[in-house]
Amino acid sequence: MKWAIIGTWRMCLEGIAAATEILGLGGDSGDAVEEAVKAVEDYPLYKSVGYGGLPNEICQVELDAAFMDGDTLSFGAVGGIQDFKNPVSIARRLSRERFNIFLVGSGAEDYAHKNGFERKNMLTERAKKIWEKRVREISENNLSPYDGHDTVGIVCLDLKGHMTAATSTSGLFMKKRGRIGDSPICGSGLYVDSKIGGAVATGLGEDIMKGCLSYEVVRLMESGMSPQEAAQNAVYSFSEKLKQRRGKVGAISIVCLNNMGEWGVGTNVEFSFVVASQKSLPKVFLAHPHQDKVVYEEASKEWLEAYQRRITQPV
Amino acid sequence: MKWAIIGTWRMCLEGIAAATEILGLGGDSGDAVEEAVKAVEDYPLYKSVGYGGLPNEICQVELDAAFMDGDTLSFGAVGGIQDFKNPVSIARRLSRERFNIFLVGSGAEDYAHKNGFERKNMLTERAKKIWEKRVREISENNLSPYDGHDTVGIVCLDLKGHMTAATSTSGLFMKKRGRIGDSPICGSGLYVDSKIGGAVATGLGEDIMKGCLSYEVVRLMESGMSPQEAAQNAVYSFSEKLKQRRGKVGAISIVCLNNMGEWGVGTNVEFSFVVASQKSLPKVFLAHPHQDKVVYEEASKEWLEAYQRRITQPV
Repeated sequence: MKWAIIGTWRMCLEGIAAATEILGLGGDSGDAVEEAVKAVEDYPLYKSVGYGGLPNEICQVELDAAFMDGDTLSFGAVGGIQDFKNPVSIARRLSRERFNIFLVGSGAEDYAHKNGFERKNMLTERAKKIWEKRVREISENNLSPYDGHDTVGIVCLDLKGHMTAATSTSGLFMKKRGRIGDSPICGSGLYVDSKIGGAVATGLGEDIMKGCLSYEVVRLMESGMSPQEAAQNAVYSFSEKLKQRRGKVGAISIVCLNNMGEWGVGTNVEFSFVVASQKSLPKVFLAHPHQDKVVYEEASKEWLEAYQRRITQPV
Repeated sequence: MKWAIIGTWRMCLEGIAAATEILGLGGDSGDAVEEAVKAVEDYPLYKSVGYGGLPNEICQVELDAAFMDGDTLSFGAVGGIQDFKNPVSIARRLSRERFNIFLVGSGAEDYAHKNGFERKNMLTERAKKIWEKRVREISENNLSPYDGHDTVGIVCLDLKGHMTAATSTSGLFMKKRGRIGDSPICGSGLYVDSKIGGAVATGLGEDIMKGCLSYEVVRLMESGMSPQEAAQNAVYSFSEKLKQRRGKVGAISIVCLNNMGEWGVGTNVEFSFVVASQKSLPKVFLAHPHQDKVVYEEASKEWLEAYQRRITQPV
């Protein structure tokens, strides 16, 4: 057995680095994935997850998160929860229940409060400024308000063969109050079975949930496809189907990992992701669709520096 | 082309009868399925759906509903919504949006209010009495509170080959506030693709969502299985998997229909369902698991009369 971990977007790099320390010492995949997602939730400059996440149409930060255990298929999720520091930890706690495993809104907040989870005002000054600027732009230019929906999703395999997956997001920027995307939905935002592998998705949740894409990727791996074939085929064939049936398709990106530590990526847009394993330190990759394949390469020093400048630039 | 419709539980009989009038006149599958579910939502004695549905732990009726269109894969859902007369109609309206298609809690209520949906106090005297009685029983006998979770789910094929599916439920009786089950979740509570068929689920949502079972049944039909094989195989193999991985499995029942009007049923408990088609008036069937098969037969006059007595008996 060897360990491996993969996550969506450059933003999970520091979290995956923290997780590799747990995994390298023989730690549990559930602990590693929770730590990785918490690091993204805690970092104020990642504007689509946790603290600093962009708010909904009325400037509330509503957060979605989920956790799944690939041994027991235990699943827990929260949707539209406000002002708790680490939604992923609440989701993990819910995954240990038999009933009431997916809680939303103020009911989820009650549960988190009663179970001692940490409160935090999750709206940062920076997020508020971005929201105010966006409101002005929308009214001045008559724009569609919806933009930005980068979920952190991580799949992890530990030395004992235990697999887990987790997601966390503030959802669609400027979303309607109470909107739930694919991230807290079992089979859409994430799915994992330790006997096969796991997958997590990011992009337009409204389209991802129409195809149960994380479940589908795991199923394709079960049927014998490599992780790369599974992720690529699921994203491409479903994107094609939505184009035929609806005329258009939103952004969809998926990363997956099988129970041998092999990984894959499927995307219909430019997309960054992070991989680490026993054999390799955490690395950022860039992927994009090219004809009917996904091509990817390690991110250059220039790209990484430009990313850093972008997330820290004044609003 | 011929039309056909199938739904979960005896309670959808009157709704399916109303839908058959629409379908027989060449009406649309979306209209038929909405009318069928509305009839169940409106009937006060069905205690797990709509008006008269059993309340959550603090005596609020929180409702979940979803609608899916098999031509476009459009999907809409509400979760934990209070005091609107027909949650399924709100879900259908949401399915026409590109963004914000799944709304929960007070955000869903805002949307419904702004879009002119009818308000109604959904808590009946009878439901309140049942809740009070249950609270006494739980404290006197130290029982697990959770019980009862019958979702109405309907799949429909019209004369033009258009397929739709919809679900509606008050969820787990005594559930925690904000709890979402499988019913409003695309792929778990329902899934439909007019080029293949559709499926809807009822039972313990927490377990159904771990297997994306409605999606899986549609996928098995796509792979060439008959609806009966697909429903039966999905329920049995997933029940078996949960027993192995978790030691136990909750109630799971599924009905499905393919795009030729053939139907199937899978269940791991006693379960009633209703079928109608161009060739046959609405009929109630009873199914139960027997070894590795599902056996079913038409409900007897005695069973139907006993059902009527049961739902009308004093609390």
